[in-house]
Amino acid sequence: MPTGTALLTDRYELTMVAAALADGTADRDCVFEVFARRLPHGRRYGVVAGTGRLLELLPAFRFGDEELATLREQGLTDARLLDWLADFRFSGDVDGYAEGELFFPGSPVLTVRAPFVEGVLLETLVLSVLNHDSAIASAAARMVGAACERPCIEMGSRRTHEQAAVAAARAAYLVGFTASSNLEAGRRYGVPTTGTSAHAFTLLHDDEAAAFRAQVDTLGVGTTLLVDTYDVVQGIRTAVEVAGPELGAIRLDSGDLPTLATAARRQLDDLGATKTRIIVTSDLDEYAIAGLMAAPVDGYGVGTSLVTGSGAPTAGMVYKLVERDGVPVAKRSEGKNSTGGRKTAVRRHDADGTATAEVVSSGRVEPRDGDRRLLVELVRGGEVVTPSSPADALEAAAAHHRRAREALPQEAWALSRGEPALETVTA
Amino acid sequence: MPTGTALLTDRYELTMVAAALADGTADRDCVFEVFARRLPHGRRYGVVAGTGRLLELLPAFRFGDEELATLREQGLTDARLLDWLADFRFSGDVDGYAEGELFFPGSPVLTVRAPFVEGVLLETLVLSVLNHDSAIASAAARMVGAACERPCIEMGSRRTHEQAAVAAARAAYLVGFTASSNLEAGRRYGVPTTGTSAHAFTLLHDDEAAAFRAQVDTLGVGTTLLVDTYDVVQGIRTAVEVAGPELGAIRLDSGDLPTLATAARRQLDDLGATKTRIIVTSDLDEYAIAGLMAAPVDGYGVGTSLVTGSGAPTAGMVYKLVERDGVPVAKRSEGKNSTGGRKTAVRRHDADGTATAEVVSSGRVEPRDGDRRLLVELVRGGEVVTPSSPADALEAAAAHHRRAREALPQEAWALSRGEPALETVTA
Repeated sequence: MPTGTALLTDRYELTMVAAALADGTADRDCVFEVFARRLPHGRRYGVVAGTGRLLELLPAFRFGDEELATLREQGLTDARLLDWLADFRFSGDVDGYAEGELFFPGSPVLTVRAPFVEGVLLETLVLSVLNHDSAIASAAARMVGAACERPCIEMGSRRTHEQAAVAAARAAYLVGFTASSNLEAGRRYGVPTTGTSAHAFTLLHDDEAAAFRAQVDTLGVGTTLLVDTYDVVQGIRTAVEVAGPELGAIRLDSGDLPTLATAARRQLDDLGATKTRIIVTSDLDEYAIAGLMAAPVDGYGVGTSLVTGSGAPTAGMVYKLVERDGVPVAKRSEGKNSTGGRKTAVRRHDADGTATAEVVSSGRVEPRDGDRRLLVELVRGGEVVTPSSPADALEAAAAHHRRAREALPQEAWALSRGEPALETVTA
Repeated sequence: MPTGTALLTDRYELTMVAAALADGTADRDCVFEVFARRLPHGRRYGVVAGTGRLLELLPAFRFGDEELATLREQGLTDARLLDWLADFRFSGDVDGYAEGELFFPGSPVLTVRAPFVEGVLLETLVLSVLNHDSAIASAAARMVGAACERPCIEMGSRRTHEQAAVAAARAAYLVGFTASSNLEAGRRYGVPTTGTSAHAFTLLHDDEAAAFRAQVDTLGVGTTLLVDTYDVVQGIRTAVEVAGPELGAIRLDSGDLPTLATAARRQLDDLGATKTRIIVTSDLDEYAIAGLMAAPVDGYGVGTSLVTGSGAPTAGMVYKLVERDGVPVAKRSEGKNSTGGRKTAVRRHDADGTATAEVVSSGRVEPRDGDRRLLVELVRGGEVVTPSSPADALEAAAAHHRRAREALPQEAWALSRGEPALETVTA
């Protein structure tokens, strides 16, 4: 992984290529645009994620012998199509919001300019990557916000597809999660990994003390002991007896967490373990994290709700043809209307540097003080403009995200449903 | 794909292995059980899916030089752990519900018996695969039920992670979807693929007639023409003019589908295209499909709601240690309690062959007439018991699913929220 990526594609992209090759429209100069019509669930902002992964996957989007044989088996036998695919290599240009950037309804987060047949072929892969990763990053950013400065750890691998899990760990790190449980995310993207033990490890042993001793012997007193397998009060007592007051942390994974954490803090302090941290897990989402703000908690482990986008598992981005041979085009029947024409976008800021609007235009935007251009060059003539390692690309995206979110107005941090934090203005 | 799968794992599985190797508990004979505590959202049943994929991924769960180097880089430097991992090869037994089987709260859908360190290591991968695939299959089965005999086509690749998309297409086919848009699902699993064209293809052309002509010239008059780019009435007229009354199908992808489909049927019939089918797409879920029952629709294309589990994107299955050296074990603190001991399960049926109960027992279940044993042998001594090609395994699972669902009582097909269709009885 990643090996070939060309078959991660909807069949209709290929039948359209076949028909366009046959009737002479194949090379019409086209602009496709990726955008979301709305944010899910009254969210205040979205986070663009997946761009770096897309640039990793793009060079492997080729039709080799194996892919072509598969297409024939599936009944795609058009000789002109197969010949063209055998030579296919994306030669177009891609511009987009920098990975980690915020987006709002109508933000042109990615623009592909290429001959029709090249641009249409990328639709499925582009949307799969951006829709998944942006959904996770958008949910994760709300959790990071709700946690204020307390660290969040991603541990949702078991609740999503095994490869989506790696991308989810990456997306979470991008918006400020400090670590992940996922070892492959460590390997591919340099995400720091963390982990200690589960209830099974305690149940494996004759008693809790034996389990704790084994863990401390191997991982050191700085480890995190899971104290809720039997009785939490006894578990904490045993943990400090075994590890001493230098115990790194305890983890609570069930019960009423605010109450338990408060009692645990008092008990730890009474036992002299005043520096032992309290980590909580157990079906946390951004609301549960916010509800623990007043509790003496030192870190959050987040699983299910993170990898499923906390109610919005896909970002709702679409990939639309907006221009053909320089002419704006758009679907016109009822519902789902789009605006034709290639867009530019700037984020407008006030004198204090706080963002005030998302300005999207199919013409030129007259620049003002405090405007920041949002589209950057990603691919030129089929080549990635700024190649970098997957880990470096992720760090750059994380840094970009921090800067972009610092400029958001206060109301962006509200967890309640509402309007987008910035209005999308058509200039 | 699939290449190595061992790093698709939470780090804590490895730290537990390290600690157990150090303190002599590594080889304790353990039974881990996979089950869901509840069904999501008042669903009536769940569908076990992913078993076949898991058996494909298991042989690649090895720690080669690259994996071991990664672990060292991530700070997992314990020599005893790394030596053991280098030799690791799963040697245990796995039993489980046949893929495609239905499940209910507490159903022991998978049982892993192995030395602790071998069994614990598989937790993350087992859960990732089963939780994802079962979530999709469980949602898809409701859609197939709502569509009655009308065909459903999976077309959600663009709304989920690019690899999850392949698994989702597989899960949908397993429960009765007739085809998928995903070419890789065709290659890996033999899922029939289908696809014709998008709005972009119409917009590419100077007018709708030119687009339709290009498509019919290449794909034949049996193709499906997308008629809602501009005006549906005009689109249908043009479609029949171009393709003639033998046109295979039209597709409607926006607007009020019951109204549009009814009008489209009348118009097609008036134009003599009485056999031209009407395919509808556009954010369909099981409720929208049910709402189209009275409309003259011939097929449904389902995307977003399918690949996101229609509100339940993960199946909520857990992997719990239930027995150690023959002794039942279970977590005992508040919340999330489990029942210790290795389980067996049968589905009880009445004299008419209708299922009446899910009987789960940690002892032996005295068999009655009409009982069907639910656990089958999947792996023995680390080897897959009945190896078969991915495509054959999928066909077998689909056939098993059809038989199992035919025995469900009528109330199982209700889309409204309610109790599970079968009560889980602890014998």
